[in-house]
Amino acid sequence: MESRTEIKELGEFGLIKRLTAEWPQHHDTTVLGVGDDAAIVGKGDVLSVITTDMLTEGVHFNLMYTPLKHLGYKAVAANISDLCAMNASPRYITVSVAISNRFSVEAMDELYEGIRAACSVYKVDLIGGDTTSSLGGLVISITAIGEVQREQITYRSTAQSGDLIVVSGDVGGAYMGLQLLEREKHVYQEAPGIQPDLTGFEYILERQLKPEARVDIVRHLAELKVKPTAMIDISDGLASEVLHICAESNLGCRIYEDKIPIDQQTYDTARDFNLDPTLCALSGGEDYELLMTVSQADFEKIKGDPHFSIIGYMRDVAEGCSLTFKNGGETPLVAQGWDAFKPAQ
Amino acid sequence: MESRTEIKELGEFGLIKRLTAEWPQHHDTTVLGVGDDAAIVGKGDVLSVITTDMLTEGVHFNLMYTPLKHLGYKAVAANISDLCAMNASPRYITVSVAISNRFSVEAMDELYEGIRAACSVYKVDLIGGDTTSSLGGLVISITAIGEVQREQITYRSTAQSGDLIVVSGDVGGAYMGLQLLEREKHVYQEAPGIQPDLTGFEYILERQLKPEARVDIVRHLAELKVKPTAMIDISDGLASEVLHICAESNLGCRIYEDKIPIDQQTYDTARDFNLDPTLCALSGGEDYELLMTVSQADFEKIKGDPHFSIIGYMRDVAEGCSLTFKNGGETPLVAQGWDAFKPAQ
Repeated sequence: MESRTEIKELGEFGLIKRLTAEWPQHHDTTVLGVGDDAAIVGKGDVLSVITTDMLTEGVHFNLMYTPLKHLGYKAVAANISDLCAMNASPRYITVSVAISNRFSVEAMDELYEGIRAACSVYKVDLIGGDTTSSLGGLVISITAIGEVQREQITYRSTAQSGDLIVVSGDVGGAYMGLQLLEREKHVYQEAPGIQPDLTGFEYILERQLKPEARVDIVRHLAELKVKPTAMIDISDGLASEVLHICAESNLGCRIYEDKIPIDQQTYDTARDFNLDPTLCALSGGEDYELLMTVSQADFEKIKGDPHFSIIGYMRDVAEGCSLTFKNGGETPLVAQGWDAFKPAQ
Repeated sequence: MESRTEIKELGEFGLIKRLTAEWPQHHDTTVLGVGDDAAIVGKGDVLSVITTDMLTEGVHFNLMYTPLKHLGYKAVAANISDLCAMNASPRYITVSVAISNRFSVEAMDELYEGIRAACSVYKVDLIGGDTTSSLGGLVISITAIGEVQREQITYRSTAQSGDLIVVSGDVGGAYMGLQLLEREKHVYQEAPGIQPDLTGFEYILERQLKPEARVDIVRHLAELKVKPTAMIDISDGLASEVLHICAESNLGCRIYEDKIPIDQQTYDTARDFNLDPTLCALSGGEDYELLMTVSQADFEKIKGDPHFSIIGYMRDVAEGCSLTFKNGGETPLVAQGWDAFKPAQ
């Protein structure tokens, strides 16, 4: 009898690490392979940046409350966000879709309407793809390709001790939008006659259903002449991403609770749900904001900029990763971010 | 009530055409978008070639008789084959996999062993991917990226009237391998004690389970200094691919039955199964050979070359697409190739 190890024992990152360990490299044009937000290939000053994501029904999305048009838009935005994390500009995407026969042509039209809208907003060309049938649910796989100047690439591994930790926009909203949709789903399932009333929750619903990739932040950084020392996008949760940069850069960090940018609607909804807004912001995921480390020499350039919040700083690895509470107390920073191999809710 | 059109009414190609019609293009570096074996982007003399494929369990493969290692290998080879069809050389791949919890870490190891073997044979670097869970079966999505000299690109749409129609290797074997595996599956299901005896069928089984992309043919063509006027890979069946070139080039063709290269084992097995070997060769699919049109001026360069069979010629569209039988009779050439939206067997 052969041994059997369950995938959840390793988790997504552990599995990827195991499967891609010690893979031979044949081309010196492979500048960066597996392990960052995107791969980088090419030669010369302008390089190609490549990322890919797969979304599966029941794991990444629930079609009961996710309109197909929004799903198409979000699937593209999530990939563009990975290009932004490398400080790159998007250029092309390929889209592959597997569908069961419960989907009609009109449903596909709707999905592609969202993809088309995202292509228009982010100025990317749809250059290929595949459509096929599936015996299970809907699966969407997108590969996005962008361009970046070689000296402008922002890795995860190059943060320096003393750098400021900076986040764009605000966080936790997408998670609260999901909580709201899940609650309304349960209400509807128990009493199908009752229509959900989502008035007043527009911001967090949009954060969940139609997030935007921060291509504007990439451009803004260029205008400010600020090149972050490291960058990552917030897909699995702020804490998880901070810890990724720490691990890859072999550093510690200190985050201040009162500096974490949380929108008022996110905050109020969390309170309504008896959830800790800070925990939602740290662990929520799917915000598609950019988390970066910035040299203190650039402090004057970003100080007071409404796009950015400085939430802490990097420090030596021996000092560890911590969260300082509003009351001055301190706790180790832990990731409770989203894992694609956790059981679906 | 909104109208509902079933996807099978349009078929795979009809659906792709509808979904990708009139898509705006933002970048003049998009040399070729949706509609050929692969997309082409870039500027300068050397361009990037990008293709993507999605394989779903129960539709593209049956894990009852497909070892995961072979599946991994074949998934890579199928994508590399699309690059070959553009006359390109492979460089990089990304691999995304969705799995349900019935798959163990060891099963994933096996799948990636096959992917690794293909990367080694085709000298491609694995640069990224995604692993996630699925509520359905196994889904594999691969994007392959290659390079081609701008003037060496072989489109589907550029065949000329009078060109020779040439196919590499032989065809129909992969289909007969599949028939054999399906038969043995049924035998096993009816009498689980009986072990399948596959001795003597090694060639067609390998054609089905571990096909090779013809990177050697791309190199051979370069050595012969033959640039096909058009090229496509045979994934859906010889007839289907010939008709693609005809449609895209707005031409007709004449194919000779007695020129179609069929291996003896393929021929004999077809006869055993009471199938017409020619029909299997024309409609079987998954051979991953290259179908090309070659200018008559290059006839001397390929004449008698064991890698190639000249099976017919291109002619004006008004003359139609026909198949000439061994006995001299003639019939319109029709595609009965594989369609990802046909019900699985």
